[in-house]
Amino acid sequence: MRVGLTHSLHRLIQQKPDEVACIFEDRSISWGQLGDRVSRLAGALQQVGVRQGDRVGILALNSDRYLECMLAVWWAGACLNPVNIRWSASEIVYSLDDCETQILVVGDNVLQSAETLHEIRKKSSSLKTVVQIGGTALDSGVLSYEDIITAAQPVEDARREGGELAGVFYTGGTTGFPKGVMLSHDNLLSNALGYLLDLPYGEDEVILAAAPIFHQAGMCIVLRALVRGCCCVVIETFDPTAIMQAVERCKATFTLLVPTMVQRLVDHPDITSHDMRSLQKVLYGASPISAGLLERAFVALPNVEFFQGYGMTETGGPYTVLPPYFHTQEGRRAGRLRSAGKAAWGMEIMVVDVDSQPVATGVLGEVVARGPGIMQGYWGRPQETAAVLRDGWMYSGDVGYLDERGYLYIVDRTKDMIVSGGENVYSTEVENVVSKHPAVESCAVIGIPSEKWGEAVHAVIVCKAGQTLDERELREFCKESIAGYKCPASVEFRDALPMSGAAKVLKHVLRESYWKGRERRIG
Amino acid sequence: MRVGLTHSLHRLIQQKPDEVACIFEDRSISWGQLGDRVSRLAGALQQVGVRQGDRVGILALNSDRYLECMLAVWWAGACLNPVNIRWSASEIVYSLDDCETQILVVGDNVLQSAETLHEIRKKSSSLKTVVQIGGTALDSGVLSYEDIITAAQPVEDARREGGELAGVFYTGGTTGFPKGVMLSHDNLLSNALGYLLDLPYGEDEVILAAAPIFHQAGMCIVLRALVRGCCCVVIETFDPTAIMQAVERCKATFTLLVPTMVQRLVDHPDITSHDMRSLQKVLYGASPISAGLLERAFVALPNVEFFQGYGMTETGGPYTVLPPYFHTQEGRRAGRLRSAGKAAWGMEIMVVDVDSQPVATGVLGEVVARGPGIMQGYWGRPQETAAVLRDGWMYSGDVGYLDERGYLYIVDRTKDMIVSGGENVYSTEVENVVSKHPAVESCAVIGIPSEKWGEAVHAVIVCKAGQTLDERELREFCKESIAGYKCPASVEFRDALPMSGAAKVLKHVLRESYWKGRERRIG
Repeated sequence: MRVGLTHSLHRLIQQKPDEVACIFEDRSISWGQLGDRVSRLAGALQQVGVRQGDRVGILALNSDRYLECMLAVWWAGACLNPVNIRWSASEIVYSLDDCETQILVVGDNVLQSAETLHEIRKKSSSLKTVVQIGGTALDSGVLSYEDIITAAQPVEDARREGGELAGVFYTGGTTGFPKGVMLSHDNLLSNALGYLLDLPYGEDEVILAAAPIFHQAGMCIVLRALVRGCCCVVIETFDPTAIMQAVERCKATFTLLVPTMVQRLVDHPDITSHDMRSLQKVLYGASPISAGLLERAFVALPNVEFFQGYGMTETGGPYTVLPPYFHTQEGRRAGRLRSAGKAAWGMEIMVVDVDSQPVATGVLGEVVARGPGIMQGYWGRPQETAAVLRDGWMYSGDVGYLDERGYLYIVDRTKDMIVSGGENVYSTEVENVVSKHPAVESCAVIGIPSEKWGEAVHAVIVCKAGQTLDERELREFCKESIAGYKCPASVEFRDALPMSGAAKVLKHVLRESYWKGRERRIG
Repeated sequence: MRVGLTHSLHRLIQQKPDEVACIFEDRSISWGQLGDRVSRLAGALQQVGVRQGDRVGILALNSDRYLECMLAVWWAGACLNPVNIRWSASEIVYSLDDCETQILVVGDNVLQSAETLHEIRKKSSSLKTVVQIGGTALDSGVLSYEDIITAAQPVEDARREGGELAGVFYTGGTTGFPKGVMLSHDNLLSNALGYLLDLPYGEDEVILAAAPIFHQAGMCIVLRALVRGCCCVVIETFDPTAIMQAVERCKATFTLLVPTMVQRLVDHPDITSHDMRSLQKVLYGASPISAGLLERAFVALPNVEFFQGYGMTETGGPYTVLPPYFHTQEGRRAGRLRSAGKAAWGMEIMVVDVDSQPVATGVLGEVVARGPGIMQGYWGRPQETAAVLRDGWMYSGDVGYLDERGYLYIVDRTKDMIVSGGENVYSTEVENVVSKHPAVESCAVIGIPSEKWGEAVHAVIVCKAGQTLDERELREFCKESIAGYKCPASVEFRDALPMSGAAKVLKHVLRESYWKGRERRIG
């Protein structure tokens, strides 16, 4: 489309100059003020050497400055590189150097010490300029964000648009080295516009940006608010108390939560002492919500309509939606609460077999998607790009099926699927059974090499404190629920499972020792 | 965007195969059936010679077949030429030949006689094939729509998208020969997506397509319904009784009306005997609604929220919206009911002086707009295109101003503005005063050549039956309300004003005799 991500700001400067664009802690900024600061920060970025299409990194916790800085990068004609704050210095350096990011904007309270910044600057071959938001300078030669805004003249919007690159989002998933997902203005705008059809924001909606903005899902929240001209309330970190306080204080009407955050919120002892009545809609994603948790959420947040979404960075954001109806008492009889929802406007979903042929309704296969949200590719990685973008379809690596109304059910990751004696075993199905055993605290099921079966089902189990579990007893327990070939052929007990920053079990770490020196065929 | 107008149909075939897509008279068709017919009609079109990008004309009253045929043209990879049914045979031939339309689909009850079709076929140099919907063949060699669908095999969607041409819409406005406005898939989709933010359709909305679909505004209604997956109730012609019956029978929730149709509907004696309670939203456009009519509409349609829109074919559809609030008792105090609304998402509005420089808030000038909805140009007319598309802005030819919140007020057409003695006189302002005189039934004010003033204000007046009016008396009457230089310097009485099919006064016809042989500088 002949339009870019800054367009909405121009409209809002004209239509809502005095209305609040963003609230962060005790600061609030109007659309007019935001427009002024963005156009001057864009000028400052150009002065320090940012040219059209250059990448500008942002390493920051959520704040109003994050929103402002994103917009200024686009206004200057540059491309965003939102750096994951949980990464180590070397991971950060990797993501900066991989896409040749020369300028990094560093936020408040994000780096553990001045040494970390010093290390990043020393190790990075591409980084030339660091701009620091707030606080005293962490390192010599670091520019002050406020100083450069004050000194700069406003510049004209570069008006990048359509297929031009808006951001490179480094994502590692749970395996391998981070890859830079290239998303264009069209990718991000089509996602926002399509999703707003199923999850409409009223003009007076107050959007709580609680999830990290450097994650694509968190950024989508902010972009939808911008497209619709809604006020964004931003909190620094994803914390239940901060969410409750922000909802109460700013009368937030919408937010995005992951199920664990729904749980931490609705089970929080203080929830009854906060006025949460303004909150009307919650989008949750990453994993389905349990019926029990939903019941508690209904009680704790009686005004809230729940929406489920599913997507990945490579799809430009969430692209399925499970509407509120299926969360209600009546709608739950339709049995779609386990579903991730149906395709939002702009995206088409297909489930295919190993030969990329579509399978019938209800049959498992790899989930593939196409549409205007699909990424341009991985930065500098044509082979990895070609492996997932085939004939216009994005291969998600997720195993699932579609029902007769196009609702998508995610069963497993293809790489976590175990092929044993020619049968497909879905690790999540086995994990669901194993985790029901009263002695099990948590578990992960993986495929390990087997001469006889190709792969064998292997369970890694963390027992509850003071409890033990016999391998044979577990197999008997499992056989009551699932076929023999799905039951763990071997079991391993550990004190803890290796987890990612996003609280996902790192199954590749568990598999590593078993597969060393061998090639595991997946997909 | 990497998406086209057929995308929505793919989604709906997957998600709502059995749900009703369209109702016309006693027929209804599901999304699954529509998908089947569209893919076969597309095959049939390709068989009779339609290639990628070719124009296919449709000359038909509104029906479910219109919707189906539009989609089939796009599915086949072709481009639509929706022909104005009010045109004469030679105007139709002009619009077919100008963009080399080889195939024309002709609907039921649209041509006055078989001779008309025969004449079109004889005169047109481009037309090769005629496909006729329903009835007995009007002419020899005419193909039957149903026969070719039945005989054809379904084909794969050509999946045209983005900047590729979706339609050539011939529009004459009130002057000159029709020009073919080229609109791409992006133009039409961005308009639909942007407008749905301010005028959201629920998934269960029932859309009444009452305005002619061959007009761009009428087509936008259908395209928004398609994007959102809403059922469309289609009526053949724009008629108050048909509207009332369709609302009652099909529980329509939304429709588009022009103010005269609002008037004919709400003042209709039968309105109280029809159950209109399902109707929740009405979009009206083309001209502002009078306060008196609105009051009557509130009484007649108490459940309805009114939205006003403004746009032109060249902008891909309506691009401003005046939300319901400003129509309410409370909102009307804000005084924006005379406004055409503010820019919808995707579009930016500016008001400029004769040097194309933006003017201040409240100052009159020419309204210009830019955004992804703006046409690709006029078919085969680079000069006319360059005259209205300048530096990315579309020059509307409308005179207006913006208020401090970006609400647009349309005052006149630039070409109807009179420049007299260096002063700008807006014809509509003078007409408003003249029409208040008790003897005046209708009037039009134009500029005529004047040696002294450049142009002089001239009024053409139709008096009420049995009444007369003295020229001097009229001038005195006008002077009570407006400055002397704005008052008509000369007056002419007629029995009727020349009107266009869209009920607009043809001022260029009135001006013609005065300006013959002279050049009138406008804009």
